[in-house]
Amino acid sequence: MRIAAYIHGGRAFAGLVSADSQSVQPIQLPGADPALGALPLIEALVRGEQLAAAGDAVAIADVQLTAPFPRPRRNIFCVGKNYYAHAREFAGSGFDSSAKSGGDIPAHPIIFTKVPECVVGPFDDIVMPQGVSDAIDYEAELAVVIGRGGKGIKAADAMSHVWGYTIVNDVTARDWQSRHQQWHLGKSFDTFCPIGPWVVSADECDGANTQVKCWVNGELRQDASTKDFIFDIPTLVQTISAGITLYPGDVIATGTPVGVGIGFKPPKYLRPGDTVRMEIAGIGTIENRVR
Amino acid sequence: MRIAAYIHGGRAFAGLVSADSQSVQPIQLPGADPALGALPLIEALVRGEQLAAAGDAVAIADVQLTAPFPRPRRNIFCVGKNYYAHAREFAGSGFDSSAKSGGDIPAHPIIFTKVPECVVGPFDDIVMPQGVSDAIDYEAELAVVIGRGGKGIKAADAMSHVWGYTIVNDVTARDWQSRHQQWHLGKSFDTFCPIGPWVVSADECDGANTQVKCWVNGELRQDASTKDFIFDIPTLVQTISAGITLYPGDVIATGTPVGVGIGFKPPKYLRPGDTVRMEIAGIGTIENRVR
Repeated sequence: MRIAAYIHGGRAFAGLVSADSQSVQPIQLPGADPALGALPLIEALVRGEQLAAAGDAVAIADVQLTAPFPRPRRNIFCVGKNYYAHAREFAGSGFDSSAKSGGDIPAHPIIFTKVPECVVGPFDDIVMPQGVSDAIDYEAELAVVIGRGGKGIKAADAMSHVWGYTIVNDVTARDWQSRHQQWHLGKSFDTFCPIGPWVVSADECDGANTQVKCWVNGELRQDASTKDFIFDIPTLVQTISAGITLYPGDVIATGTPVGVGIGFKPPKYLRPGDTVRMEIAGIGTIENRVR
Repeated sequence: MRIAAYIHGGRAFAGLVSADSQSVQPIQLPGADPALGALPLIEALVRGEQLAAAGDAVAIADVQLTAPFPRPRRNIFCVGKNYYAHAREFAGSGFDSSAKSGGDIPAHPIIFTKVPECVVGPFDDIVMPQGVSDAIDYEAELAVVIGRGGKGIKAADAMSHVWGYTIVNDVTARDWQSRHQQWHLGKSFDTFCPIGPWVVSADECDGANTQVKCWVNGELRQDASTKDFIFDIPTLVQTISAGITLYPGDVIATGTPVGVGIGFKPPKYLRPGDTVRMEIAGIGTIENRVR
């Protein structure tokens, strides 16, 4: 099952994407705010409810896909340095050479976050923060979407709380990320979180072994399997939920593989006019222009 | 002006606290959700609207004060190591000895964040995360409440965006804060953000020179003026808004002064049964029991 959020005829909808990705069937739940996108549908499914069609399916080509959660219920959880090859690349970039930062391979998951308002749609523009930073980097990431909430979730039970997956571009101002020590600012600039193209249910994507790819202007930059995770999805859910109650619709971006801009010498940061395309097997594609 | 959020007769209200702090006058704005507390009132005041009384004032003693923003619109912005004496205390604790972390005095503001759902009321309990951490620390903080939103706000204009102030206890699991490098997890456990007792307008408190005090079980632990800030409030607003649009009701906790539990040798962490009382001149008092 794939749930998309979209604008059609000037109105917000959520609906089910067809198997061939050519159309979307709108779903309207009584009392649900369509502006919340996939969230009310996932909540209903978690409660065991059926989704009833509301109106005719429309061609995907005729709608504007928005982020599956256009207004996420809260900040987006993100994982830092969670692929072995990327952790080594990051250490080699000179960004973070202190022993305190865990050296090459973190001993515990590094969890930071992005403000919910930096979320944009799967084909929306990333806006360069003119005069604020020109060290803007891309990070292709598999993102987990929580279904049933909970606290103190054990790794062995964690996958029963995962409703599905989507793609996140964890756009980052590298100079701000470094200068301010805590990463929240440099990760949260307006438009710095493209998400989409939809949420796929857990049966459609193997989070433990799926390929994450990113192209910039057609040049393949990232191409790795989530088999390279340092901390697997059950460990991440267990870690975050140890002290923090998780809710349906929470998004956990699981970290980015090797091949980010800062990993090149000199770094290959994004420039106005660039196009960043990300593809994850089992989910789909997002593509965002930089302006 | 002081805006409180409270429960009375099982219903949520927001209202204006009397000059003697003995009563509160309920305010009901058309279409506003009372569960959002002070937020709709501040938004209305920013739009230049008048607040009209709705019903009779009630005694503060007869209501249950909640956090002024019981469900904050998003994560709470927080500043790390923002008092000179505390930065030295923190360095001396051995928590953070790497050069990368900026040594004693940060060169740039350290901005991290707490999930909105960890907010509790000014007299609610702080719940020990049993089996997860017993290194739980208090941090008394002056918190800025944004009125008029904006982006790219210059320091010279910043105070015109500050609607007022409240008190935040930035409760922290020190072991999680350290182990996971980024502080989001150890700062966001459920109940780790008591806020209150109300929001006072900027004319009632001098954010640049007010006294922040904290007692644990009656023992004075923190007692410092915000004159000891490393980064003043205009600098913080300028820094956060450089890339992130600020909205009315955003909360920025400005950091804690010297005297936190980890600063003692051995550390004086909170224990079940402890009472943490915080007072800021011009605002009031919050008091939370640990259980």
